[in-house]
Amino acid sequence: MFQNFDAPSRAHPITERLVALRAQLGRTGLQGFVVPHADEYQGEYIPASAERLAWLTGFTGSAGAAIVLTDEAAVFVDGRYTLQVRDQVDVADFTPEDLIGHPPHQWLKAKLSADDRIGYDPRLLTLAEVRRFEAVCQAAGAEFVALSENPIDAIWADRPLPPLSQVMQQPDDLAGETSVEKIRRMQAVLAEKGVDAAILAQSDSIAWIFNIRGADVPHNPVVLSYALLRRDERPTLYVDGRKLSNVLRDALSERADIKEERDFLVDLTKLGADGRRVLVDPQTTPALFARTLTDAKGTLVEGGDPVVLPKARKNAVELEGTRRAHRRDGAAMTRFLAWLDANGDQGTETEISVARKLEQFRAEAGVADDMPLLEISFDTISGAGPDGAIVHYRVNESTDRKLETGTLYLVDSGAQYRDGTTDITRTIAIGQPTSEMRDRFTRVLKGHIALATARFPKGTTGAQLDTLARHALWQAGLDFDHGTGHGVGVFLSVHEGPVRISKAGHLPPESGMILSNEPGYYKTGAYGIRIENLIVVTPPAPIEGGDREMLGFETITLAPIDRNLIEVALLTPTEKGWMDAYHARVRETLAPSLDGAALRFLIDATQPLEA
Amino acid sequence: MFQNFDAPSRAHPITERLVALRAQLGRTGLQGFVVPHADEYQGEYIPASAERLAWLTGFTGSAGAAIVLTDEAAVFVDGRYTLQVRDQVDVADFTPEDLIGHPPHQWLKAKLSADDRIGYDPRLLTLAEVRRFEAVCQAAGAEFVALSENPIDAIWADRPLPPLSQVMQQPDDLAGETSVEKIRRMQAVLAEKGVDAAILAQSDSIAWIFNIRGADVPHNPVVLSYALLRRDERPTLYVDGRKLSNVLRDALSERADIKEERDFLVDLTKLGADGRRVLVDPQTTPALFARTLTDAKGTLVEGGDPVVLPKARKNAVELEGTRRAHRRDGAAMTRFLAWLDANGDQGTETEISVARKLEQFRAEAGVADDMPLLEISFDTISGAGPDGAIVHYRVNESTDRKLETGTLYLVDSGAQYRDGTTDITRTIAIGQPTSEMRDRFTRVLKGHIALATARFPKGTTGAQLDTLARHALWQAGLDFDHGTGHGVGVFLSVHEGPVRISKAGHLPPESGMILSNEPGYYKTGAYGIRIENLIVVTPPAPIEGGDREMLGFETITLAPIDRNLIEVALLTPTEKGWMDAYHARVRETLAPSLDGAALRFLIDATQPLEA
Repeated sequence: MFQNFDAPSRAHPITERLVALRAQLGRTGLQGFVVPHADEYQGEYIPASAERLAWLTGFTGSAGAAIVLTDEAAVFVDGRYTLQVRDQVDVADFTPEDLIGHPPHQWLKAKLSADDRIGYDPRLLTLAEVRRFEAVCQAAGAEFVALSENPIDAIWADRPLPPLSQVMQQPDDLAGETSVEKIRRMQAVLAEKGVDAAILAQSDSIAWIFNIRGADVPHNPVVLSYALLRRDERPTLYVDGRKLSNVLRDALSERADIKEERDFLVDLTKLGADGRRVLVDPQTTPALFARTLTDAKGTLVEGGDPVVLPKARKNAVELEGTRRAHRRDGAAMTRFLAWLDANGDQGTETEISVARKLEQFRAEAGVADDMPLLEISFDTISGAGPDGAIVHYRVNESTDRKLETGTLYLVDSGAQYRDGTTDITRTIAIGQPTSEMRDRFTRVLKGHIALATARFPKGTTGAQLDTLARHALWQAGLDFDHGTGHGVGVFLSVHEGPVRISKAGHLPPESGMILSNEPGYYKTGAYGIRIENLIVVTPPAPIEGGDREMLGFETITLAPIDRNLIEVALLTPTEKGWMDAYHARVRETLAPSLDGAALRFLIDATQPLEA
Repeated sequence: MFQNFDAPSRAHPITERLVALRAQLGRTGLQGFVVPHADEYQGEYIPASAERLAWLTGFTGSAGAAIVLTDEAAVFVDGRYTLQVRDQVDVADFTPEDLIGHPPHQWLKAKLSADDRIGYDPRLLTLAEVRRFEAVCQAAGAEFVALSENPIDAIWADRPLPPLSQVMQQPDDLAGETSVEKIRRMQAVLAEKGVDAAILAQSDSIAWIFNIRGADVPHNPVVLSYALLRRDERPTLYVDGRKLSNVLRDALSERADIKEERDFLVDLTKLGADGRRVLVDPQTTPALFARTLTDAKGTLVEGGDPVVLPKARKNAVELEGTRRAHRRDGAAMTRFLAWLDANGDQGTETEISVARKLEQFRAEAGVADDMPLLEISFDTISGAGPDGAIVHYRVNESTDRKLETGTLYLVDSGAQYRDGTTDITRTIAIGQPTSEMRDRFTRVLKGHIALATARFPKGTTGAQLDTLARHALWQAGLDFDHGTGHGVGVFLSVHEGPVRISKAGHLPPESGMILSNEPGYYKTGAYGIRIENLIVVTPPAPIEGGDREMLGFETITLAPIDRNLIEVALLTPTEKGWMDAYHARVRETLAPSLDGAALRFLIDATQPLEA
């Protein structure tokens, strides 16, 4: 089982650690130190060895930061964690601050005196972040000092070792394009951009281009490493050699030089000394690498990671694998929903017991299909009743709530299989739903259908499409406070850039991209609703009777949507037609994989809506 | 009558003018000169005295530019004018180029040699434009030289005098806020932005803050002038004194210093010498003013014109005036539509005759209402049959087309009254429309209704709302290639910033803004459809049963929409309900102002749709 349901603990001798850090800062003549929740690879998940923020402050949330000054310290958390931080952190040690509304560099601005020296670890802050801190320090006459050693590491006696998961090859028949060909394509991009090389600092970019996967961090099957693409030479992969079998090393060596991570700085210095132009993404590249290049007189060409867009545009083989993964995952979800239908209203199940059951069905489906479940793609959001209204709810032993009749249960979960990554949310009525619940659910469904059926011209942005998912809610004075869709990788990150369907989605979805379609509605203290399928952007195609080619979406997630929650009178004939056709497809596709009670449930749950 | 329907002529001795300009450039040691279609006030319309581009090239379109080099010259026009430019300009003199796809600075880039000196008139190019030219010149080792005299003016012997229209006071009971109060509000904005002063270079900003109007240019009732706002002192209005009556001068002098335009440079130099921080909009301010400030060591604070947003948010008095103007204009439109209904299919009317008739009904309505029509708010777009498919069509004597039965007629027009500005488009079936026309019209109508009825949270952008107007078209493989809506002033510009409903509309509509709602569909060579009403953004308000306040729109344009073009089966019950309620409101509001055939037409044209 992959999820840890332990309640957040508060066992650490935080005050002593703070004293020790301040002493350490004092020895090096620093008046402060910045502690981000980040490792040196800047991914969504970090290994235990990089949990410096949790070790220092006690706060174990998935995002945040701290700043320690000589006589005060703050911990920065977002709206998800305002309660948790007060449970886990003594405010006498760290003042809780708003990570979004009053971010660390702005907080620091008000605290600085001239000649202060504030330290940071240049592996843990990106170039863009460092620039923000440098600007406020410069304005105050203070200095933002890159440290060669992290002062926390000097006092964190029992710091875990960095992960050393074995690197796996992602076979060509799942990747759909050889690594050699991907490297060649990217070299053409570098030539087009007029750069000699590009730093790849994002682990999923590296996993994609070399067709490798790993298990260094939870949920995201990447290999923590760096890479250097070169326009006219072989790329170099900087990775701990102990992660590579001899066979894999030999295979990788055919297309790349393999070096230890410590050689990365050496090679960057050499590139700089040779006067090379190097493409660097300031938003994702640790400041250390950018500064190493410029210190050596290299030219920084700032731009987005060049791998991000090619990786987001999936090829036919990746899409076929993902569809296969969704059929397998849909069968598991349907077995789960059938089980929940039989057991959910007995008063015996809880958020954790149900989430564990779902993992079990997924694991069994993987075994049955000879494509094992390797990981869940993120911590399952298992929210009963009012917990469903907490958008980023992560159940733990101390919050675990029983499923009760007359409530809604929301479950957002996903799987990592070798052939694809899934992400699905279903909301299920436990017992009889109220008419308000049915009204809200149906409006969310209308938004979901509007996006699923949308046709749109090339160049339409995610922000423009986002409106379709909200319109039915807006008309009723309702809305939801999260994006409608994010990109999804293929046996990679479940949150993949660069395109998203949200108010801030300024990029257009392109043919082959996998996105989520997940509008919702949340009534604080009462219930939460979300309906999420993954969708693939279909290529521009003519429409009968039309005069322009339009892109559209293919829904690839397959599992029944709870008909008990649909108010048919609120649907247009077109919407009802979509719902019935989707359910028919779910039934036809999944029936061969199911039997017994699950098959009976599937057939019943996918019947046409009664008008 | 306000519109000039003369065919574009080609009577100018262009080659001689080009020779004379090159000789003039030679005398001053220049290898080239840039001629924009702009005056020194950077508005949408320019006076005859500023038509240097037309004088030099023969091209009379409403946008464009030219660059004259020693041995070649180019004229830049957008897609509207690719045919017209070849009729009006000899390509042996000027090569036609694409203003959007290959703009002047990029074209120049490929032509430059080191040490070239390219001249420009720094009153006619904005700071942002000059920077683009400077960048390409610098890259080529050439120089972009600001000239103190425009070399065209030196050779344009019969150049018209600049306009000297009388300035009118816009009374407080129409403006809804005294100029004194507006100045005070804007001074608070300057204080907030930490600047000492702001340049107002846009004539409609000046008209708004001083509550004045004029007639210096067509259609847009502004006074060509400049102004300087000062945080701690009275503002200065720089305007030709001959435009002011003694009474108005006295009134204006109570709230501002009045100076001649030539004093503007003197005062800017003084501000600079005093080390002042001055807010300048680089997109709308002639480079001369910005450079005068910086040459004198003043500090340029770049930002948007501070008046633009306050001006766009209309107060209750302005909205009431605008609603009154729309009732008056709606009565004129209805008389016109009744007349067209009786005469349009007789084979006797043409695009020009019909447009003239519409002006006549507007003029009569103004007289009847004691609020005369002062101007049309833009050149009427009067498009019969295939001409309706040309989005920016302006009829002239050489293109004038008869209205024929079995076609569509599109008319986009507006009025300037003292109490408000109107802008309305109606598409009318002349005889029996085809079922394709009805299908397309109904899809456009569905988009129009979706926007008219939209409720949306504060902060929703114009780009997000734009989707609603296109969705029904997209689903059928159709779209239109213009924005859905633009801002509209109150007895000011019919195209007013900063908010628009379009793919590029990154700003959110705010309470009190007046916008257009004008989706369309265009079938090249066949017909054009557009349905345009003006809408006002309503304040955030709760919705029965909802949990969030939502903004919305009030439709203020009142005139029948052609029911013969509506395919009722394509409308949802909600859409049909909106259409019938709109028509009932049109009938109730306009009936008291109409009689005879027009009243009978109104009653007939506003009957509920038959399902």
